[in-house]
Amino acid sequence: MTRDSDDPPARRRFLVQGAAAAAALVGGRARAEEAAPPAIPDGMKSPGADVGSQTYGTPSRFEADVIRNVPKGLKQYTSASSRTPLQELDGILTPNGLFYERHHGGIPDIDPARHRLMIHGLVETPLILTMDDIRRFPSESHIYFLECSGNPGFEAIKGKTASDLVGLVSCAEWTGVRLATVLREAGLKPEAQWVVAEGADAAALTRSIPIDKCLDDALLVYSQNGERLRPQQGYPLRVLLPGFEGNMNVKWLRRLNVTAEPAYSREETSKYTDSMPDGTARQFTFLMEAKSIITRPSGTQRIAPGFHEISGIAWTGRGKIRGVQVTTDGGRTWQDAALQEPVLTRALTRFRLPWTWDGQPTTIMSRAVDETGYVQPSFSDLTAVRGLKSFYHNNATVPWRIAGSGEVSNGYA
Amino acid sequence: MTRDSDDPPARRRFLVQGAAAAAALVGGRARAEEAAPPAIPDGMKSPGADVGSQTYGTPSRFEADVIRNVPKGLKQYTSASSRTPLQELDGILTPNGLFYERHHGGIPDIDPARHRLMIHGLVETPLILTMDDIRRFPSESHIYFLECSGNPGFEAIKGKTASDLVGLVSCAEWTGVRLATVLREAGLKPEAQWVVAEGADAAALTRSIPIDKCLDDALLVYSQNGERLRPQQGYPLRVLLPGFEGNMNVKWLRRLNVTAEPAYSREETSKYTDSMPDGTARQFTFLMEAKSIITRPSGTQRIAPGFHEISGIAWTGRGKIRGVQVTTDGGRTWQDAALQEPVLTRALTRFRLPWTWDGQPTTIMSRAVDETGYVQPSFSDLTAVRGLKSFYHNNATVPWRIAGSGEVSNGYA
Repeated sequence: MTRDSDDPPARRRFLVQGAAAAAALVGGRARAEEAAPPAIPDGMKSPGADVGSQTYGTPSRFEADVIRNVPKGLKQYTSASSRTPLQELDGILTPNGLFYERHHGGIPDIDPARHRLMIHGLVETPLILTMDDIRRFPSESHIYFLECSGNPGFEAIKGKTASDLVGLVSCAEWTGVRLATVLREAGLKPEAQWVVAEGADAAALTRSIPIDKCLDDALLVYSQNGERLRPQQGYPLRVLLPGFEGNMNVKWLRRLNVTAEPAYSREETSKYTDSMPDGTARQFTFLMEAKSIITRPSGTQRIAPGFHEISGIAWTGRGKIRGVQVTTDGGRTWQDAALQEPVLTRALTRFRLPWTWDGQPTTIMSRAVDETGYVQPSFSDLTAVRGLKSFYHNNATVPWRIAGSGEVSNGYA
Repeated sequence: MTRDSDDPPARRRFLVQGAAAAAALVGGRARAEEAAPPAIPDGMKSPGADVGSQTYGTPSRFEADVIRNVPKGLKQYTSASSRTPLQELDGILTPNGLFYERHHGGIPDIDPARHRLMIHGLVETPLILTMDDIRRFPSESHIYFLECSGNPGFEAIKGKTASDLVGLVSCAEWTGVRLATVLREAGLKPEAQWVVAEGADAAALTRSIPIDKCLDDALLVYSQNGERLRPQQGYPLRVLLPGFEGNMNVKWLRRLNVTAEPAYSREETSKYTDSMPDGTARQFTFLMEAKSIITRPSGTQRIAPGFHEISGIAWTGRGKIRGVQVTTDGGRTWQDAALQEPVLTRALTRFRLPWTWDGQPTTIMSRAVDETGYVQPSFSDLTAVRGLKSFYHNNATVPWRIAGSGEVSNGYA
């Protein structure tokens, strides 16, 4: 009935020993021998809500504070962002309702029956496709992270919570069509080198994608975590470029213009370039490099001395996370965290490390290593190369300071 | 910048050939050379909705029909079920808002700060744990399906849509604590053979779980698809028994009583047993056996002649799906479908097969094979063994009839 071999005596010895060893594991909870059994809760005394009382469900009212983190006091919210509450989440997936947002012209309200995707430029046969056409192509599903390249800005990282610090990253299972399949349908001309993607938002957000990426793992996606894309994530169609900076994953996609040169659009000249110390700027820095953060315990949480599981997320645009190291003594020593299997390419990876806090002030921090051997840098290592004129692609380690009181706070602040 | 080796001449030859080969792929869509470019949509002419206009997002208003499938005209909805709209979903994950429901006493409204889990019976140290206590144990995350054992009842399968037929199955990433860890904390006595789980709902739903499963992959879960469990799925705590019938995965979990014998509760005597042709009944038939269904094209959809991707889901309580075979000629011949990687143990597996429909009436159907070699049976093969007195554990293949008009309907009806 189960898969394990049955060896009761050995198993039971293990369990008795295990109980003794684990007795120190959980501190501060009442044991039944010291406490009366819990009273019958009210919810058992009369029937609860009916099946179908929510035909599309929502979270418990006791989770009303677990929402997207919207910055307060901005002059406008049309071109702005909201962050995923990373410190409240478990596992590697982000529910669609909490997926981070970054819009440049607000969220358009698109009727999928009227939406069209035009593919033109250096192609044999220009195409205008309906959503039904797009859904008839062979499809694929993959779990990938998506991250804003300004997550956070290029500075000693500010904010209180894990969400404040690096909440512009989320992860989902995406379903759609290989971009290569659609481009093959149109037929690329030999001089095709770039595909310029345009969104149907008020910003007409435009980014140039190198042809090699278009023919590799790029997708045109219409579904996220099983259901159709949410309006905030590009309904009914977006580009998904695994591992590339968020704004290239053009939402509300209406146009793919195949070209020999990039568009040099606003979002790849005035914005989304990296000012270097020598006065030059890096352009077309697409890849999001390896990064990690401890989400529990993390800023604004409070811990008691005793056992804790340190848990967090790691990711890299270069492929798979190979390992995550965690320090609990401010960087003097590092231990390998366990990675939750399966570790997927260009997806969030959950790491965990058991830890017993002795009640002394300290600093905890994680650093990710990806399958290419790249190691997540400290902020000082990063700025030694990049200087302080940059804004994007800050993937520095995040220290959490733990006070003697157990209060956890931003180690940069 | 990308991982592929760069071989432009070969690549371009492939693309040109690919375009020719794929030209027949999508039928019936306008080509740009025949049509004017789409007009600028209204959504580009003025700013869209602000960032943060939904701090917890909801689907597009154009997806308002994608909801849980609630049966109409029941005498009561306190003990009833609603189904996942499988035919509307892609990939393997079910969004929490569309996860199937089956309640026996309605949905209780539980404050997690007041919720307690009591562990007692044949243990060294009875425990009463708060949710904070439970969240301090080492955690794990896994993607597992969950399925009602009456999905559907034991009969030639009725209904119109894939959801009507087998919509009592869903799949999510669950996070929680190994049940074995919590039982070790309490310390099992040598005579412990069963753990009787009780829910804090008005039905006090009670099921007995064999100790081997409790010490294997059983979890106490508090999160689903990243966020905390929804009330409909057991907020704040439920049992998760990978591959076992749904109602054993006790929701709103308040009590684990470790025993030498099963409880012989209502849900394992009067209900959830399988009447056999000889008048006996199978009891404690926990495992959900291999099953699959084509979700696209499926009942009430309509297809045109030409290319289609046949797509569906397969799953087995015994571990991983090894393969899915699809017939497009009513069972005369079968082809191997492609399985979306990664194939995960006790999770839904998405399968796909390219198919060109010639416009002639036919029947399509899938059958799953799991890693043990078990093959999903036809309904006649199943009833040859099980008779027709049963209700639960009908895992027969599902035929879809395709009329000359392209209308898809239930092949059993």
